Amino acid sequence: MNLIELLVPLLGVAGLMVAGLVFKKIMQQSGGEGTVADIAQQIHQGAMIFMRRELKILGGFTILVGGLLIFKDPYEALAFFFGALCSSVAGVIGMFTATKANVRTALAASEHGAARALTTAFFGGTIMGLTVASMGLIGVGSLFLFFGSSEHDIHIIHGFAMGGSLVAIFFRVGGGIFTKAADVGADLVGKVEAGIPEDDPRNPGVIADNVGDNVGDVAGMGSDLFESYCNAMIASMAIAATLAFSKVDQLGGDAHALIFLPLALASVGLLCSFTGIAIVWLSSSRDPARALRTGTLGAALIFILAAVGVVASLGVSLKVWACVLSGSVGGILIGLSTEYYTGGRPMRSIAKAGLTGVATVMIRGVAVGLQSVAIPLVVVASVLLAASSLAGLYGVGIAAVGMLATIGITMSIDAYGPIADNAGGIAEMAGLGKEVREITDSLDEVGNTTAAIGKGFAIGAAALAALAIIAAYVNVITANHDGFALLLSDPRLLTGVFLGGLCPFLVSAITMNAVGDAAQEMIAEIRRQFREIPGLLDGNAKPDSNRCIDIATNAALKRMILPAAIAILAPVVIGFGFGPETLGGALVGALLSGVLLALMMANSGGAWDNAKKYVEQGNYGGKNSDAHRACVVGDTVGDPFKDTSGPSMNILINVMAIVSLVIAPLL
Amino acid sequence: MNLIELLVPLLGVAGLMVAGLVFKKIMQQSGGEGTVADIAQQIHQGAMIFMRRELKILGGFTILVGGLLIFKDPYEALAFFFGALCSSVAGVIGMFTATKANVRTALAASEHGAARALTTAFFGGTIMGLTVASMGLIGVGSLFLFFGSSEHDIHIIHGFAMGGSLVAIFFRVGGGIFTKAADVGADLVGKVEAGIPEDDPRNPGVIADNVGDNVGDVAGMGSDLFESYCNAMIASMAIAATLAFSKVDQLGGDAHALIFLPLALASVGLLCSFTGIAIVWLSSSRDPARALRTGTLGAALIFILAAVGVVASLGVSLKVWACVLSGSVGGILIGLSTEYYTGGRPMRSIAKAGLTGVATVMIRGVAVGLQSVAIPLVVVASVLLAASSLAGLYGVGIAAVGMLATIGITMSIDAYGPIADNAGGIAEMAGLGKEVREITDSLDEVGNTTAAIGKGFAIGAAALAALAIIAAYVNVITANHDGFALLLSDPRLLTGVFLGGLCPFLVSAITMNAVGDAAQEMIAEIRRQFREIPGLLDGNAKPDSNRCIDIATNAALKRMILPAAIAILAPVVIGFGFGPETLGGALVGALLSGVLLALMMANSGGAWDNAKKYVEQGNYGGKNSDAHRACVVGDTVGDPFKDTSGPSMNILINVMAIVSLVIAPLL
Repeated sequence: MNLIELLVPLLGVAGLMVAGLVFKKIMQQSGGEGTVADIAQQIHQGAMIFMRRELKILGGFTILVGGLLIFKDPYEALAFFFGALCSSVAGVIGMFTATKANVRTALAASEHGAARALTTAFFGGTIMGLTVASMGLIGVGSLFLFFGSSEHDIHIIHGFAMGGSLVAIFFRVGGGIFTKAADVGADLVGKVEAGIPEDDPRNPGVIADNVGDNVGDVAGMGSDLFESYCNAMIASMAIAATLAFSKVDQLGGDAHALIFLPLALASVGLLCSFTGIAIVWLSSSRDPARALRTGTLGAALIFILAAVGVVASLGVSLKVWACVLSGSVGGILIGLSTEYYTGGRPMRSIAKAGLTGVATVMIRGVAVGLQSVAIPLVVVASVLLAASSLAGLYGVGIAAVGMLATIGITMSIDAYGPIADNAGGIAEMAGLGKEVREITDSLDEVGNTTAAIGKGFAIGAAALAALAIIAAYVNVITANHDGFALLLSDPRLLTGVFLGGLCPFLVSAITMNAVGDAAQEMIAEIRRQFREIPGLLDGNAKPDSNRCIDIATNAALKRMILPAAIAILAPVVIGFGFGPETLGGALVGALLSGVLLALMMANSGGAWDNAKKYVEQGNYGGKNSDAHRACVVGDTVGDPFKDTSGPSMNILINVMAIVSLVIAPLL
Repeated sequence: MNLIELLVPLLGVAGLMVAGLVFKKIMQQSGGEGTVADIAQQIHQGAMIFMRRELKILGGFTILVGGLLIFKDPYEALAFFFGALCSSVAGVIGMFTATKANVRTALAASEHGAARALTTAFFGGTIMGLTVASMGLIGVGSLFLFFGSSEHDIHIIHGFAMGGSLVAIFFRVGGGIFTKAADVGADLVGKVEAGIPEDDPRNPGVIADNVGDNVGDVAGMGSDLFESYCNAMIASMAIAATLAFSKVDQLGGDAHALIFLPLALASVGLLCSFTGIAIVWLSSSRDPARALRTGTLGAALIFILAAVGVVASLGVSLKVWACVLSGSVGGILIGLSTEYYTGGRPMRSIAKAGLTGVATVMIRGVAVGLQSVAIPLVVVASVLLAASSLAGLYGVGIAAVGMLATIGITMSIDAYGPIADNAGGIAEMAGLGKEVREITDSLDEVGNTTAAIGKGFAIGAAALAALAIIAAYVNVITANHDGFALLLSDPRLLTGVFLGGLCPFLVSAITMNAVGDAAQEMIAEIRRQFREIPGLLDGNAKPDSNRCIDIATNAALKRMILPAAIAILAPVVIGFGFGPETLGGALVGALLSGVLLALMMANSGGAWDNAKKYVEQGNYGGKNSDAHRACVVGDTVGDPFKDTSGPSMNILINVMAIVSLVIAPLL
């Protein structure tokens, strides 16, 4: 056991301690009393109740899958349980703290102004960011200590990835359905029918909507990124373990150094995240948008420079460092393209289409989404080509690690968004006044832009991670079957391409239908309450928020099972039913159609959302104009696109790939 | 020159003569006078003017591409011009006659009732169906006579496929943009804003809308199917020409017989189509829906039986016949799945979502489309697996030929729909009375169901044809490069998958934006006319229909060029820029994402359309209810999905594949 290698999990523990300190600092701020505290408590409890029920179902699945895995390798099963545990812990901690930070952000805005509110929301998100990164380092790092030095044991670490992925698909899909069922339902009756503002306390669906931000955008997003982060590392390690000697020699260093490199990069990435967080903290009193941007880009830049040292000190060729660079540059380009489509001219063309009604808003928004896949796919293809020509498929994995190494800060900013959003909701519901709402709105807006970039980043990284896992899968199969080749002209493989390609469409349909059904149920319930509870619309009676939370919870828990089952079972059925060639084709098919759908849905949804906001700023008739009404519908349709179905794609392709990698030796 | 082989083009000539006789019979019916004749003339002229301008642009492109092709092989270039000519002739004849049959259908309904109207519309479509099949047999059949017996010359026939494909992408994309720009524009101002019925003569966009049916749904659809039909034959011939001796021996017969088989099957298919047409004619006096269904299924059934004889008489193994069978069964299954999604429970769930507003109609419709890809993709994968295990990739081509062999009748029914639709438009505009409109509506409805099945069929056939061409491409490359292998784990190939996969999304976006832009322009123009022409809405003044036709024409002609350029240039750029491995990956990527998008868009669009009709039948509040208004928006959004972007996908993937096949020897 090398001392430096021991440092990786210890650094993870240190990260958790920093997160703990940040939490303590946040809790020192006032949590309010009376109505404010009451509303915050309702959101917190709703989220925790959902999480408890979700974990129960997830626990059953974990025991089932893990139990089967014991027959393959008991250690791998253990790693699987460990992975599931780490991912769940990260999600629970992140969500718990987010539901404490939201009210404190609202109160900070009310008592101390924008700068203090920004730091409160950002530090709330920081806990999630640091926890995700730390749990990843603790998990993968400690498994590496035990199993990393033997080529024959390294497959055990795959179990960890599978555990994290299993949790992620449940958290992401369940959380995504919950949050959008509540959001769509509350918006359609509240904003569109009853004409009351967003987050109005008279709307029975508003608490559920705010709960949804936490279970979907915090816990769901966290487990999603945790999974991409760990999968990128583990895939690179797996490829490194099966590299031929000649190749190892070409890349410099020894096989062990190549296996350790992803962990070393991620560790340094965490240190860079600390720095980025400090930058945001120190510069938050000025322009908040700039603070967040400087922090993220600063961390990424320092990381790229530091990576030279890491690569060199392990004796690895600087070609591998160039892969890190290509991954980071690619991530930024995808982010910028996302920003353009969801915030630039294409977004404004949607707003303009509002002048001719809902139909043209819809057509335009779908077209924007379809178009927006081009640049990211060209970028992913370029990174793939560049990294693989520099260092083979190992380079592709390393590029993904490079993209995700500063997850500590990028995830912080992702989680900051929903906290700011929730703070706005609490401010509105508790009647903290217009200025407070304006502060939280401005924070939320900043978060939206950075979140859009983060989303593009996440999709790109997930695609590269999946590619790396697929490469590892091919390596394992090739090692076990002499003369095995995945030939594109093989009809079995082409069959797989079709079968795999339909999975993302099917899962998107299921999740979108789940949101549609639950939203329709929610709408009926909110209409009923407006009708049957006397004095509700005048503000003289309280709505029954719990009924709405129940509807969203039940829908999410019931409807998350099928997508998860498809993700896990599809590779098993295809692999054992048709053989490894078909499964190889299926992984590529699923990857392509998943990435296409993920990008299209995220960007259509984001563009619709921002087009509505653009009209609200006074363009094309401003608030309450016909264009605005048309764009509100666009935004509502975009909700499940961007927050339910779209993000599920990242995990779907990763789960399918990791399950294939785990079952590969059995095929 | 074998006598039987000479029969193929002669049969094609006979088919044209039958079409001529049918045309004479239709022209003997009254073409009306006064308003009716005037409206019909306006539609006819609008369509012909558009066609003339389109052919001019197309001619330029054809000369450019053909001119480059001369440097490769002058004979191939000649075949290319011949293919472009055959496809154009089929489109022009079909559209010309459709614009003569529409008014005669309306008058037949008015003077003789439903049965006569059905036969008139159906025979109008028959001309298109027979022309497409005949031109295909004449073209491919005569080229086979000259170049089919030498393995070294058979590539010349690829030029024909490329010519047909070039025309198809222009006709399909241009026609699709025209028809939906007019439709969306006319509907949004007329039905939604001004509250006047569809096809109301006061609406300035109505003539353009009716012109669009002819240029999009008749000429566009015809060239689309012509291309799939010829490509399926040519790809099978190409694969047969490069088959190893051992394989030829396995399939029985000799190489020459295997090359000739697709033509023999198509010829017998034309005879079966004659039979099917006779069945419809004889049974049309009873239930029209049943007549069409009996004719189509009857022709398919007879064809499957007759194919046994064809296969056996050429001395080919009956395994190859089983491929024909698998193709036909697969086609029917895809058709039935299309019918279920666009007419069954999923469609009704969209109508129900109308109760909670536009947003839920949109979410539900997209979900239906996403879900609807599953069955067809499983079917295509099964046909691929079955046919290839029976007879290798040659079997896949033959399955596609089997699916398309009775194109004579399936295309007739496809073209029948827009003729019936146009007849309804003419009846409404000329004020032929409510009963006439009811007859044409019932004919239109019957056409919709069969058209939905036909659309599914067309996508399935296009996918198999593309697969066969890709297989032929791989064969050519492998023959030219020793040890060439398309390995899925090759990063160059994966790069291609991404690059190819984005093309369908990009082309969809461009075409959808074109419809959006032109529709917005059209809306502004119609609003202007309603505002500025005194007495227009009271029926005392005539609208300026030509302005609307101009808008649609210009938009279509301008915006069809980029998609066509992408389809032709993408394989050239990828092939010469990155090499044959990347191009191979790109073809598979484009095929997968194109088929997925085509199915999703066709079925979402079809389901929205029918959901609106379902509400109009009195469900969920009936006409003019909130649910109806929501579903009208759904229908409008679905228009470019199902009639512009979706159908362009079939051709896009086929053009990309055929261009790759043609440039393959140069790579």
